[in-house]
Amino acid sequence: MTDPTALTESLPELKTRIHKPLNVEASFLNPPSPITTAEHFFIRGHFPLPTIDASSWRLEVSGAVEKPLSLSLADLKAMPTATHKCVLECAGNGRLFLPNVPEGVQWGLGAAGCAAWTGVPLRDVLTLAGLKSDALELVFEGADHGIPEKQLKPKNEIHYSRSVPLTSAMKPEVLLAWQMNGENLSEAHGAPLRLVVPDWYSVASVKWLTTISVVSRPFLGYFQTVEYAYWAHQGSLPPERIPITEIFLKSQIAHPVMHQQLRAGEVCRVYGATWGAETPVDAVEVSTDKGLTWHPAEFDSPAEDHAWRLWHWEWKPGTIGNYILMSRASDREGRTQPAQHNEDHESYLIHHTLPIPVEVV
Amino acid sequence: MTDPTALTESLPELKTRIHKPLNVEASFLNPPSPITTAEHFFIRGHFPLPTIDASSWRLEVSGAVEKPLSLSLADLKAMPTATHKCVLECAGNGRLFLPNVPEGVQWGLGAAGCAAWTGVPLRDVLTLAGLKSDALELVFEGADHGIPEKQLKPKNEIHYSRSVPLTSAMKPEVLLAWQMNGENLSEAHGAPLRLVVPDWYSVASVKWLTTISVVSRPFLGYFQTVEYAYWAHQGSLPPERIPITEIFLKSQIAHPVMHQQLRAGEVCRVYGATWGAETPVDAVEVSTDKGLTWHPAEFDSPAEDHAWRLWHWEWKPGTIGNYILMSRASDREGRTQPAQHNEDHESYLIHHTLPIPVEVV
Repeated sequence: MTDPTALTESLPELKTRIHKPLNVEASFLNPPSPITTAEHFFIRGHFPLPTIDASSWRLEVSGAVEKPLSLSLADLKAMPTATHKCVLECAGNGRLFLPNVPEGVQWGLGAAGCAAWTGVPLRDVLTLAGLKSDALELVFEGADHGIPEKQLKPKNEIHYSRSVPLTSAMKPEVLLAWQMNGENLSEAHGAPLRLVVPDWYSVASVKWLTTISVVSRPFLGYFQTVEYAYWAHQGSLPPERIPITEIFLKSQIAHPVMHQQLRAGEVCRVYGATWGAETPVDAVEVSTDKGLTWHPAEFDSPAEDHAWRLWHWEWKPGTIGNYILMSRASDREGRTQPAQHNEDHESYLIHHTLPIPVEVV
Repeated sequence: MTDPTALTESLPELKTRIHKPLNVEASFLNPPSPITTAEHFFIRGHFPLPTIDASSWRLEVSGAVEKPLSLSLADLKAMPTATHKCVLECAGNGRLFLPNVPEGVQWGLGAAGCAAWTGVPLRDVLTLAGLKSDALELVFEGADHGIPEKQLKPKNEIHYSRSVPLTSAMKPEVLLAWQMNGENLSEAHGAPLRLVVPDWYSVASVKWLTTISVVSRPFLGYFQTVEYAYWAHQGSLPPERIPITEIFLKSQIAHPVMHQQLRAGEVCRVYGATWGAETPVDAVEVSTDKGLTWHPAEFDSPAEDHAWRLWHWEWKPGTIGNYILMSRASDREGRTQPAQHNEDHESYLIHHTLPIPVEVV
């Protein structure tokens, strides 16, 4: 097995946040491209990298189906394939911007990437298995396993697992993917097969996928009740522990980086990317005064469903001093990024306008 | 408001396990009676006793109903009433018998009682409100509120709340009760109105009831995801955090008590009670040698649904020494109490054959 730590240490723009299990962050949008390469793509690991023998590996599909399946990679590759570009963002991306050192991996801006994934649409495999009428959710299980972190945890080892409701899982862009940007998946990115759920935080895009269980009630596993969940008020009910699902509207500044020195009187290309699960992003604005005034940015790439969109704004700072840059995305429904983190989301779903301090000299 | 602590301290057979919030245990089956009096009935409190003005108190019924209701106590009392005898047992009853000082209130045998409850069948109120076709669970909320105990908790105060699936809640014996053993409920036991769910651990029998919300998906509140829940394997799925529901088959020895001295050659009446949610208890046996050999006990009260049944066995110990007494119930389906606590149940659902050490002198 390749040592992915060694691989990542060869690229100075990557930061290994945790060695065991491997958690690697990339400098956000560095290099600036609509597509993030596999080697610049963040890695979120919960357990040691699993050892998988691809020749004996199978994907098992069972539960509320007419015909349980056991598929080899060759079986999957023999089916019609599809390629979809999409953002994967860790639900804790941006955690470094929260006060009081929250729990969890201390991600900066780099736990998000946009890649083109190739595989079989999940719904084609489900159609092959034949869903029973009471099918409600799909439980996806990976080969990675261990004892999880939090106090309230099962006493024995568990496999990473996560569920997605059928209504989301049946969308045509949800893939059982073996390729990322036209290359076979690397071990660290989930080879031989990764679930890719566009528009959802990447907690749902289960790597090293081995099992799909179709269930007729909501799944209550560790990674959706203890981790990757938060207390939410739904209607007038008392708070409930609900799992994290779709990506909130967001934009991030890739350049300048925090604490960068800029020259007064010289043009600085402020650029970044914007994404979100709901309606397409309609506008990005940039502020140099911590959100008091805003300037419209221009898009550098087309609007595409599920993918991020690059933008820039040219700034010519006239006066030396300290500045706080921010970017703010709005969508066609008029939703916009909030100014503050919603504390109800605990240390997840960080999608407010993030402050980037710079110095003009 | 009466000070319930003062009340309980006047009865030597009660033990106040925690003063704030009030948690009081009674000596099990002392006095020995098929019915536990209100003052000998255990009290499990999560938050301070709420102050309720009975004249302005209302029960609100909302959610997936045709006609939301707001009922006064007089409205409820004007409906046809019913009385049902049933055991209420705390899900942590017997925790003192577990090794390694588990979390939670350190109950001995006395966090269980059997009373006759009078009120309106819940299903009559639900029929009045008219359930919508997608109704799945009922969320019951009490007037008691505060910050709960565990690390994984909502950051603000919550009210005590618990859900029961409609299939269980619609059983005719489930009551909205204002009387216990023919007397109005005391404050400590949930006045003015307590939900009583026979056959379920008493976590479901919400005191100081104010709100019933009909929901069309499983409720994920604190008292069924963090507390009163455990990691269970359902089918071939990874472990899930499931709420505690029905009472397991159980028997307890009330006499002799732990470490009691008995006289060799004299008859000792070993007695206790047995209960459980499923089929009626068919037999109770007693062991004096820690479960090696068993002797059939006789029943002292009839088999009644939801209530406990008293039993006894006469023992004439011949030889001085130390003995471990145990009782073991079996039901008509052949189920019997296990010899050991199931560790998967954490510090809940303690229903194995509990050892009562005694000394014969």
